[in-house]
Amino acid sequence: MATASPIQSQLAPRRRGSASGPRLETRFDRRLARILVYATNVFCDKGYAAASMRDLSRASGVSLSGLYYYFESKEELLYLIQKHTFSTIVDRLRGRLDDVPDPADRIRLFILNHLEYFLANQKAMKVLSHEDDVLKNSFGSEIAAIKREYYRICIELLEGYKLARGLEFSSRTAVLSLFGMMNWIYTWYNPRVDGDAAELAREMGDIFLQGIGTVPCKGLQKKRPAVSS
Amino acid sequence: MATASPIQSQLAPRRRGSASGPRLETRFDRRLARILVYATNVFCDKGYAAASMRDLSRASGVSLSGLYYYFESKEELLYLIQKHTFSTIVDRLRGRLDDVPDPADRIRLFILNHLEYFLANQKAMKVLSHEDDVLKNSFGSEIAAIKREYYRICIELLEGYKLARGLEFSSRTAVLSLFGMMNWIYTWYNPRVDGDAAELAREMGDIFLQGIGTVPCKGLQKKRPAVSS
Repeated sequence: MATASPIQSQLAPRRRGSASGPRLETRFDRRLARILVYATNVFCDKGYAAASMRDLSRASGVSLSGLYYYFESKEELLYLIQKHTFSTIVDRLRGRLDDVPDPADRIRLFILNHLEYFLANQKAMKVLSHEDDVLKNSFGSEIAAIKREYYRICIELLEGYKLARGLEFSSRTAVLSLFGMMNWIYTWYNPRVDGDAAELAREMGDIFLQGIGTVPCKGLQKKRPAVSS
Repeated sequence: MATASPIQSQLAPRRRGSASGPRLETRFDRRLARILVYATNVFCDKGYAAASMRDLSRASGVSLSGLYYYFESKEELLYLIQKHTFSTIVDRLRGRLDDVPDPADRIRLFILNHLEYFLANQKAMKVLSHEDDVLKNSFGSEIAAIKREYYRICIELLEGYKLARGLEFSSRTAVLSLFGMMNWIYTWYNPRVDGDAAELAREMGDIFLQGIGTVPCKGLQKKRPAVSS
């Protein structure tokens, strides 16, 4: 039943044969994008391991064989969701950072960009958090590479900030603490109480920048340098 | 096959009839505690939704009917794991806080207590994080109450710190950011690189206390007071 699934332009590096023409390709992309939204909801509600292609077929209204036209396996589907999410966050961030020279503002922009995407795509972010270590082989390595790139960008922003302010601390612990602050909000965020992404980004930016930014105190100074980046 | 499961003293408020005597009760507790460890591993590796009682039977070497002597359902098992974990963390914390009067030290102790338990029980903490919203009805309400108590303790520690230092900021965002920093480490912690619980607690304590503790800056000051605790 499962035929080779042609993964599309925006979502993966592989492209369909040009014979199908740009119009069909766009229609393919649009349908795949819609299926990814349904898949995200199903994975979010049932968990990736428990969700079946049959569940997805029911939710999306696309037949099982119809689904297999777009991807080969449930694993490929998770890969497409992760790839789309991380690529979008990284691309947006790079575009926005170009216009911002101040090191503190660049870190604030990183936080804002992350939270904006996060709050607008909470189900996708929950799936990403929960199914963090599911993908193996080439799917897994490709996603790991994008995540590493994103982590590296944040490390570089911090290194820039440290240099500008003459600070010394472990970039690793600081960056991973920041990711924790931001990613954990899917467990508690309440738009009525917590404001929008801009307000949360300002608050978390304050805590984080003050946390790393004043005169370094003992614990932060004594971190092993070999581990700091 | 499923008979009523007598849940035991340390793990749940209900107790077995005294006819069985203290020796049998202890043996029951010990066996249940062992099953909980196996269940934690199975839930951690396969995910709660995908894990079956058959998987647990295989992992623990206890027959299906044997398992149902200890609990009625997979849901009750998850409840027992969560209850045991949260109760242990809260009880240890209360015992340790008694001897520590300084507001900053009390926050540092909260972080240390959390990270020590977390790093010693990483699989349980991953299960708790992932299956956060699975439990419903009375199981769910009982766990929610313990978590609320834990959250309230942290809010009170922060309020004490704010009072002592004359600070103004949103305790809610600060506490939930702190939980994020601490809980997210199950995705990245590497003992070879990141040191032990004491070292991580010192680093995170530095970031957090500096983050909330210096002269309040604009974003932190303007938070709505109605939301701040």
